[in-house]
Amino acid sequence: MDLMREFDLHNPRALARAISRAEAGRGGELIRALYPKTGRATTVGLTGPPGVGKSTLASALVREARSRGRSVGVVSVDPSSPFSHGALLGDRIRLAEHFTDESVFIRSMASRGHLGGLAGATADAVLLMDAFGFDLVLIETVGVGQSEVAIAELAQTTIVALQPGSGDSIQVLKAGIMEIADIFVVNKADHPMADQLRREIRSMMEMLQWSGWVPELVMTQAVDGKGVDELVAAIERHRAYLSETGEVERRRRDAFRHQVRQLALGRMERRLDRALRAQPRDGLDPYEAADRVLSELGLEG
Amino acid sequence: MDLMREFDLHNPRALARAISRAEAGRGGELIRALYPKTGRATTVGLTGPPGVGKSTLASALVREARSRGRSVGVVSVDPSSPFSHGALLGDRIRLAEHFTDESVFIRSMASRGHLGGLAGATADAVLLMDAFGFDLVLIETVGVGQSEVAIAELAQTTIVALQPGSGDSIQVLKAGIMEIADIFVVNKADHPMADQLRREIRSMMEMLQWSGWVPELVMTQAVDGKGVDELVAAIERHRAYLSETGEVERRRRDAFRHQVRQLALGRMERRLDRALRAQPRDGLDPYEAADRVLSELGLEG
Repeated sequence: MDLMREFDLHNPRALARAISRAEAGRGGELIRALYPKTGRATTVGLTGPPGVGKSTLASALVREARSRGRSVGVVSVDPSSPFSHGALLGDRIRLAEHFTDESVFIRSMASRGHLGGLAGATADAVLLMDAFGFDLVLIETVGVGQSEVAIAELAQTTIVALQPGSGDSIQVLKAGIMEIADIFVVNKADHPMADQLRREIRSMMEMLQWSGWVPELVMTQAVDGKGVDELVAAIERHRAYLSETGEVERRRRDAFRHQVRQLALGRMERRLDRALRAQPRDGLDPYEAADRVLSELGLEG
Repeated sequence: MDLMREFDLHNPRALARAISRAEAGRGGELIRALYPKTGRATTVGLTGPPGVGKSTLASALVREARSRGRSVGVVSVDPSSPFSHGALLGDRIRLAEHFTDESVFIRSMASRGHLGGLAGATADAVLLMDAFGFDLVLIETVGVGQSEVAIAELAQTTIVALQPGSGDSIQVLKAGIMEIADIFVVNKADHPMADQLRREIRSMMEMLQWSGWVPELVMTQAVDGKGVDELVAAIERHRAYLSETGEVERRRRDAFRHQVRQLALGRMERRLDRALRAQPRDGLDPYEAADRVLSELGLEG
């Protein structure tokens, strides 16, 4: 296969095309061929509410990784991110340094459409970047709702970014995101309410039981690069923890299982939708109608 | 069945217990029995980012409906809502007038856990409130991510609330929420940037093609009740449009189909998870593993 050869020759366009294929739901053949080459990259997820400065943080992390000679792939599934199509011009300019760096590959995923489909394509993109040979794969996603749960299943280390003086950050904490964070970042640490947010996170953490890794809390001002070295150190401490305890293997298995589940579920959904379209279910209540369609698919009980 | 008799006797505790049963995934029998009594209620969805004042708007809508002698059921699927468990004391006090009104029934849905499961339980709760005899069922949900799409499938009229001077509102618009709004509300209309947000919504609306109903835009200050009468008038205009065009039937069919799909999908997921747990898939790539599990379920192709 031509694309495959180009991929092996380390042509970034081949990677871009491979991801497009995955986005179109036709990534299976490539992933199957490339799967043996995966498992080398460090995968880091970065999530948080809109406006928290995720893209500035991501950009700072990319810069830091590059200064250590590591190559970086970024998968952005945040529709509001400047990495994505909805970029504001100013943000794009800020990121321009990375756009021209050959050891950095930035890819935004189409955020419309189906959650399962997007999650599947995101998982494929991470595997493709891993197989392509990037040392670090950074997955950026807007963290409200269910998407942050998916990121935690894909990434070995999950960073939850919050900002002071915004009700959103507290809402995000309440919405069940505490449990997925390996590292909390309070960005915009120069804000007068930064210390209050830090205390709130600490007190919320005290309400949970932790076994093993206890999330670290890092204060950053990503726009000036302040605290980013400390964030990188925290990521490395978490990575060391994962290796020492063997949990890195568990997380890899979880990511695998998660992707298998998403793939199978996506195909089941397509089967279901075909069956639902095939005939109307007038006069039935929804439970009866669901029973019927499942039995048509051979899935009783 | 005892619960069924109590339900028929219009005991609100029976409704509460019925919804709890639905939340536990055991609502099928009740829904099947009560389904013929549904289809009478007006269903209105209210969504928007955290902090926009959704609960104040919801409270104002409840008050307005009550002043017209209509009974109201509220289903809150917003983890940050004062209707839900995460309530701040001040918010609860503001809503206290409704808590003691027998023609108002407020129910928050557990927001943790599975998206499909929550959507299914929400759909059940709406049907149960409808069957119980509420004139208006208001579904409140936090509007970032996928949940707002689900609300649009459940509700006949969907209100998207935004606030001025917050980047979030623009992000929400970008994230594909434009298409689901029947009515836009700019709350906190006394904010200096309210007019700018109004213009932004207008200009984003111009980029879309509308056939049939064109979303209305209402400015409110829900905290003082300002603009709420205009919002109610807009809801009634939309309702009249739905009736006159017959679209109310189409929306009811869509809601039905949506619920059937969610129910069937939920059961398929449980089947899938059992099959995935049953055996490890070491040494396979994710696509191969997904093929295997589907064929084990009798769902090839």
